[in-house]
Amino acid sequence: MRFDLVCNACGKRTSFNIHGTKCSCGGTLLVEYDLELVGRTLTKESLQWRGTSMWRYEELLPVVRKEHVVSLGEGWTPLVRLGHAERRLPIGKLWVKREEQNPTGSFKSRGFSAALSVAKEHGICKVAVNSNGNAASALAAYAGYAGMEAYVFLPQDCPGIIVEECVHYGARTFLVDGLIHDAGKIIVDGAAEQGWHNVGTLKEPGRAEGKKTMGLELAEQLGWKLPDVIVYPTGGGSGIIGMWNAFKQLRELGFVEGELPRMVSVQESGCDPLVQAIEGGGRFVAQGEDVSSNPTGMRVPNPPDGGLIVSILQESGGTALAVSGDEIREAQLAMGRQGISSSPEGAATWAGLLRLLDRGWIGAEEEVVLFNTSHAMKYLPWAAQSLPVVRSYRDWVALAGGR
Amino acid sequence: MRFDLVCNACGKRTSFNIHGTKCSCGGTLLVEYDLELVGRTLTKESLQWRGTSMWRYEELLPVVRKEHVVSLGEGWTPLVRLGHAERRLPIGKLWVKREEQNPTGSFKSRGFSAALSVAKEHGICKVAVNSNGNAASALAAYAGYAGMEAYVFLPQDCPGIIVEECVHYGARTFLVDGLIHDAGKIIVDGAAEQGWHNVGTLKEPGRAEGKKTMGLELAEQLGWKLPDVIVYPTGGGSGIIGMWNAFKQLRELGFVEGELPRMVSVQESGCDPLVQAIEGGGRFVAQGEDVSSNPTGMRVPNPPDGGLIVSILQESGGTALAVSGDEIREAQLAMGRQGISSSPEGAATWAGLLRLLDRGWIGAEEEVVLFNTSHAMKYLPWAAQSLPVVRSYRDWVALAGGR
Repeated sequence: MRFDLVCNACGKRTSFNIHGTKCSCGGTLLVEYDLELVGRTLTKESLQWRGTSMWRYEELLPVVRKEHVVSLGEGWTPLVRLGHAERRLPIGKLWVKREEQNPTGSFKSRGFSAALSVAKEHGICKVAVNSNGNAASALAAYAGYAGMEAYVFLPQDCPGIIVEECVHYGARTFLVDGLIHDAGKIIVDGAAEQGWHNVGTLKEPGRAEGKKTMGLELAEQLGWKLPDVIVYPTGGGSGIIGMWNAFKQLRELGFVEGELPRMVSVQESGCDPLVQAIEGGGRFVAQGEDVSSNPTGMRVPNPPDGGLIVSILQESGGTALAVSGDEIREAQLAMGRQGISSSPEGAATWAGLLRLLDRGWIGAEEEVVLFNTSHAMKYLPWAAQSLPVVRSYRDWVALAGGR
Repeated sequence: MRFDLVCNACGKRTSFNIHGTKCSCGGTLLVEYDLELVGRTLTKESLQWRGTSMWRYEELLPVVRKEHVVSLGEGWTPLVRLGHAERRLPIGKLWVKREEQNPTGSFKSRGFSAALSVAKEHGICKVAVNSNGNAASALAAYAGYAGMEAYVFLPQDCPGIIVEECVHYGARTFLVDGLIHDAGKIIVDGAAEQGWHNVGTLKEPGRAEGKKTMGLELAEQLGWKLPDVIVYPTGGGSGIIGMWNAFKQLRELGFVEGELPRMVSVQESGCDPLVQAIEGGGRFVAQGEDVSSNPTGMRVPNPPDGGLIVSILQESGGTALAVSGDEIREAQLAMGRQGISSSPEGAATWAGLLRLLDRGWIGAEEEVVLFNTSHAMKYLPWAAQSLPVVRSYRDWVALAGGR
C-alpha cells in the first residue's frame, strides 16, 4: 500500500482506515506515504504536465482509485504579491495566498475534496460536520456533488451568509445553542444511531491531507524555495498540521532543501489557547467557557490536538499571537484597499504581520506569506432566515430527527 | 506595433488608443493583433511553462510592457464536469466554467485586469464605471491594487452584498435612481469635468479583450477542441464578443480547427432585447422603459453594441432565449445541489440548457459548456447600509461632488 497511518506520539503504524485519527496512546494518527514509491512518478518535471487542481499531487493524497476523487476545482489558488505594501513596510517579499478563490469561497474546499474522496472510496453516503461556517458550506457542496447526504451543525451566531450557503448546497442545516465543540458533541452522540460519518477536524484522516496541498502548492509556486515565514489564522489547526507534513515530505522527496518556514498562528483575543500555550512555555491547555471573541473560524477553544499544533509552531521556530477584533476590522479595510477580498481570518494575518514587524520578529529581507482563507462578503450583515436551533443530540432528535 | 484597432463594420484601421471603441461609421472598434508576430512566441508548447492566470496569453492582450499588468490572480478558472447531470440528461458532455472563482468572485475580474492594465500603461489614475454590480466590485478591487481612484455607479436595487464589496475595496460608491444606462450617463456627463476614465462596457478597448481569455482558456482546457455549444448569460455582451474573437484568433493561429461553437445568449424575461432581435429575424432594437426583470447582470436593455452580439449569435449558428425569474430560482437550487455556487446569471444558463434540450436544439451526443459567472452568496438578502442615491451628474455634483 502507498500509505498507512502512523501515530505522531508513539510511532505505532496501522493500516489506513477511514475512522483512524486517534492512537490508543492518545497521539494523533497521520497519513504516512511510501515516499520512495511516490517519488517514482511525482517529479518536478511530471508536474509541468498535470491539471491545476490540488489533485496534481495525487500520489500524496490518500485515495487509491482516480474515479473516487470528488473534485470541484479546488486548489492551485493564486499567490499574489503585495507590491505597494512591500514598499511601505520593512519586509523583503510579501505574498497573499488567495484561498478564497477555491470553489466554496474558502480554503475548506481542499479538506473536503480529500475527505469526501476518501469517504467515497470507502462507500460512505451520509456525512456530518460541526463548524464555525466555511467547513460546513464546503461539506455541503462536496456532498452535493458526490451525491451524499450532508448534515451540518453550526453555532447559532455564525455568519448568516455562510449558513445560507449550506442551505443553497442542499445540506440539512442546524444551528446550535453553543460553541463549535458543542456542535461536535451532537455528531459524536448521534453518529452510530444516524449512520453519520463524522468529518469534523481530525475525526477522519482526509481533511488534514487535503489542507496539506496548500503547502505543496506554495513550494511549487515559489519555484521550490520555501518562504521564511508563514502567517496562518488558526482555529482547529489542520492547516498548520497539514502544511508542516507537506514541507517534511517535500524535503524527504528532495523537492526542497534547507530550513523550513517559521509557522505563525494568529488567533483573536478572547479565544487564543495556542497563544496561551506558546506564552506559557509550550504546554497546551484547552480554553474554558470564557470565550469572548467573534464567531470566526479562529474561535476554537478546544482544538482536537492543540498539543500537536503547539509542537509544530515551536519546532519551526514560529510563534502564536492574538490580535483584537478592532485590529482585524482595520486590517480588513487595509487588505480591501489593496484589492483583496479578505475574511476576518485572512485579515487577522495582516494584523499579525504588522505586530511581528513592529517587534522586529520578521527581518527586513525576509519573505512572508499570508493566508487569506475566505471571502470578505461571507461575513457581511445579512437579513436573517430562520433555521432550527438545537442544544444536544436528544434535542435534535426531538426537533429534527425525522427530517 | 503588435496590435491596432479595426472597425467591425467598415474595416477601417486606426492605431490603438485608450478611448477608441466607436468608429466614425458607427461600427465598433476591436483590437486586432499581428497574428504572425503573435504566433512566433505563443505556441501550445510555450503555454506548458507559463503561469496560470489569464496573462499566460499575454501576446493576445493589448499591453506592451509587463510591468503595467495589474493582476490579482484572474483567469485559469476550473472547468468542472457535471457527471450526475450528464447521466440524467440527453447530452454528450456537460461542463461548467467556474468564473465565480476569479479574485472578485465573478468573471468581471478578467475585463478589469485588462482594462486597468491598459489604463496604467496610458498613465490613467481615476476610473469610473456603471454596473449592475460585479463590474463595479471588480473595478473597485483592481483600482485599489493599482493605486487608482475608483468611482462606481450602480442602480439602487442592485444586490446589496456586491455594493458592500465596492465599499470594502475602497471605491467611491453611488447608487443611482435608474437603470444601468442611466448610471452610465452620469459618467459620460461628468467624464471631462472630473477626469474620469470611463471603463463602462465597450467604452474602452481593454474589457472585451480581457473577457476574450475565457474563450482562450476554454479551448486550451478542452485540449484545443472547442465544444459544440456555449451557453452564456448575456447583458452588455462583451463576453460573447470577446470569446468569438478568441476563437477566430485561435483558428487563424492554427490552435483549433473546424466549426466554432454555437453561441447561445440567455437573458431573463422582462429584459431580453437580444431574444427579441433573434426572434424578429436579426435586427437589433434597444428595449424601452418596459423593463421588468430582476436586478442581475443580464438586465441591460440597451447594450452598447447589440447589433454586433446578434450578428455573432447568428454567424455561429446559435440563438438567444429568455428564461423566467422562477426558472432561474429553480435552476439555482439545481446547481447548488450539484455543489456549484451559482449566481442567478449562472443559473440562467442551466435553465436555458433545459429548454434547449427540451426543444431538441442540442443533440444527445453534443458537448456543452455553461458559464457560471458569479457566486450565489453575492445575491443573498442583506441588512442594508445607506449610501447616497443620485439621478444625474448634476445631482451627483450637488450631493457628492466634493467627496
